[in-house]
Amino acid sequence: MQARARRAAPEARRGLTPRPSAGQNAPVDFHFETEVRVRFAETDAQGIAHNSVYLVWFEVTRIDYLARFRGGYPGLRADGIEALTIEANVRYLTPARFDDRLTIRARCGELRGARFRFDYAVEREGEAIADGWTRHACVDAATHRPTRVPGWLADEISAAES
Amino acid sequence: MQARARRAAPEARRGLTPRPSAGQNAPVDFHFETEVRVRFAETDAQGIAHNSVYLVWFEVTRIDYLARFRGGYPGLRADGIEALTIEANVRYLTPARFDDRLTIRARCGELRGARFRFDYAVEREGEAIADGWTRHACVDAATHRPTRVPGWLADEISAAES
Amino acid sequence: MQARARRAAPEARRGLTPRPSAGQNAPVDFHFETEVRVRFAETDAQGIAHNSVYLVWFEVTRIDYLARFRGGYPGLRADGIEALTIEANVRYLTPARFDDRLTIRARCGELRGARFRFDYAVEREGEAIADGWTRHACVDAATHRPTRVPGWLADEISAAES
Amino acid sequence: MQARARRAAPEARRGLTPRPSAGQNAPVDFHFETEVRVRFAETDAQGIAHNSVYLVWFEVTRIDYLARFRGGYPGLRADGIEALTIEANVRYLTPARFDDRLTIRARCGELRGARFRFDYAVEREGEAIADGWTRHACVDAATHRPTRVPGWLADEISAAES
Repeated sequence: MQARARRAAPEARRGLTPRPSAGQNAPVDFHFETEVRVRFAETDAQGIAHNSVYLVWFEVTRIDYLARFRGGYPGLRADGIEALTIEANVRYLTPARFDDRLTIRARCGELRGARFRFDYAVEREGEAIADGWTRHACVDAATHRPTRVPGWLADEISAAES
Repeated sequence: MQARARRAAPEARRGLTPRPSAGQNAPVDFHFETEVRVRFAETDAQGIAHNSVYLVWFEVTRIDYLARFRGGYPGLRADGIEALTIEANVRYLTPARFDDRLTIRARCGELRGARFRFDYAVEREGEAIADGWTRHACVDAATHRPTRVPGWLADEISAAES
Repeated sequence: MQARARRAAPEARRGLTPRPSAGQNAPVDFHFETEVRVRFAETDAQGIAHNSVYLVWFEVTRIDYLARFRGGYPGLRADGIEALTIEANVRYLTPARFDDRLTIRARCGELRGARFRFDYAVEREGEAIADGWTRHACVDAATHRPTRVPGWLADEISAAES
Repeated sequence: MQARARRAAPEARRGLTPRPSAGQNAPVDFHFETEVRVRFAETDAQGIAHNSVYLVWFEVTRIDYLARFRGGYPGLRADGIEALTIEANVRYLTPARFDDRLTIRARCGELRGARFRFDYAVEREGEAIADGWTRHACVDAATHRPTRVPGWLADEISAAES
């Protein structure tokens, strides 16, 4: 975590990592990246980062991504909106190890109504470690009924990704 | 966790949960199930089980599944073989909450060389909570090079799933 | 987890494990025990259960302990009461490893006003793995102000421990 | 995590946080601090950081602390030495919440033979959130037998803390 968030360097933007999901193999063009450091508690007895931890890193990345806009994710929650994760996918390409400094690139897209999607690429000094994507739905925090992604956020994301 | 593993009841075997991955939409016929109880530590500030925890439950399920055969997963490790997770997918259908008793059905298949796959369906009193799949590769624990799924294990799985 | 909770066998009740906290070295007389199985995700690159996981197991034990009384911990929460952890202590005596089946004995005591305490002893086939204690305070879930342990719960605990 | 490690400001060094352990109530004089950000995955259904997570943060802090010396903790492991945690204590003073930026101050001391101790104070914008301590023993990674803290490390710590 802790996210020295910044716009990706031009080289990075070329984003050649293929997308894992069927039917969407266009290369992802990442405009955002953050960093995580593999914690000792995140390793397992195979000596590598546990497979479940990548979903935590993806979440840290989403929160860093959104932190650039207004109140970010805490602001969304303060507005009474929760973003639920409705699907997640990870491809583990090369094990990550304790103390590795990982760059996680992210892109948000496919905003339609209550739904949106994030794509991720995890790298260690240019080497592909993992990639993945998550799909989300905004719900009213009180009723848990679907609610549209707020217009201000859709606009911010659209501007950031264009 | 803790896995009162047992063969699924006949109703369960009908396994109508559709598979999430593209191109493999045949219903999954589950012959195995285990149970986990949602721990308080597994919940998050949305009041629901955190999305990363499902991958931990899937792993607990795999280990319970394999525990029926010889030394199970610890036995595999004792033989110098590690099973790496190479891809994971989860679809979150309905939130799980603290203290929920969940049934996780699992099926192992697609054994080819070093690789195999598990499919999962998570239910709470008959209600679908989530489903997903993971893909794995056996590697030599020392060299991390791919190594075939041991014949005895392939045979056991084949017998259990037929 | 999952807690085949039962009253401890007479041998166990002798409870000779010394208490770690200064000034309270009387042996603890345990009347309750539950079981957890070390999950692979709970191990770290030292090949042992991570030190933070013991606090999760202690919590699982508390919840199993309370599950014998009325609605248990979920019932307490339904009554608008949260039990906060205000101090925790663990002594790690021997590493626990993947797939170890651990017995966790627990005793609740020192109920005074809003506060109470749990003592724990973790064993693997009679070998001491760890011990520890946690202190708690009941608070009103809405205001987070201290509130007395409900009378019914104090009575149940008192009866169970006498 | 991610640890913009730096020497504590002079005000901080006065370190007035009382030590929780009995018989050791001298104020701790902290010369080191790092930062963590509360991850969403670290919260629980009480809406606060889960009690077990503090032990993960303490570990992150130890690793940041040691990273200033030679190879740091990875270097210690490369030398065939593991540092086991043999006791841990946390006092939870005020709940930490999602996205809180926490400062964790740490001091290492009581180096004797194979053993050493860390003290911690967790703050959020000057407010005390928690404090605690952990005790550790160096062991040979292969045999798990106690081994002295390497001289170079004892010297580095001694210099840093004086």
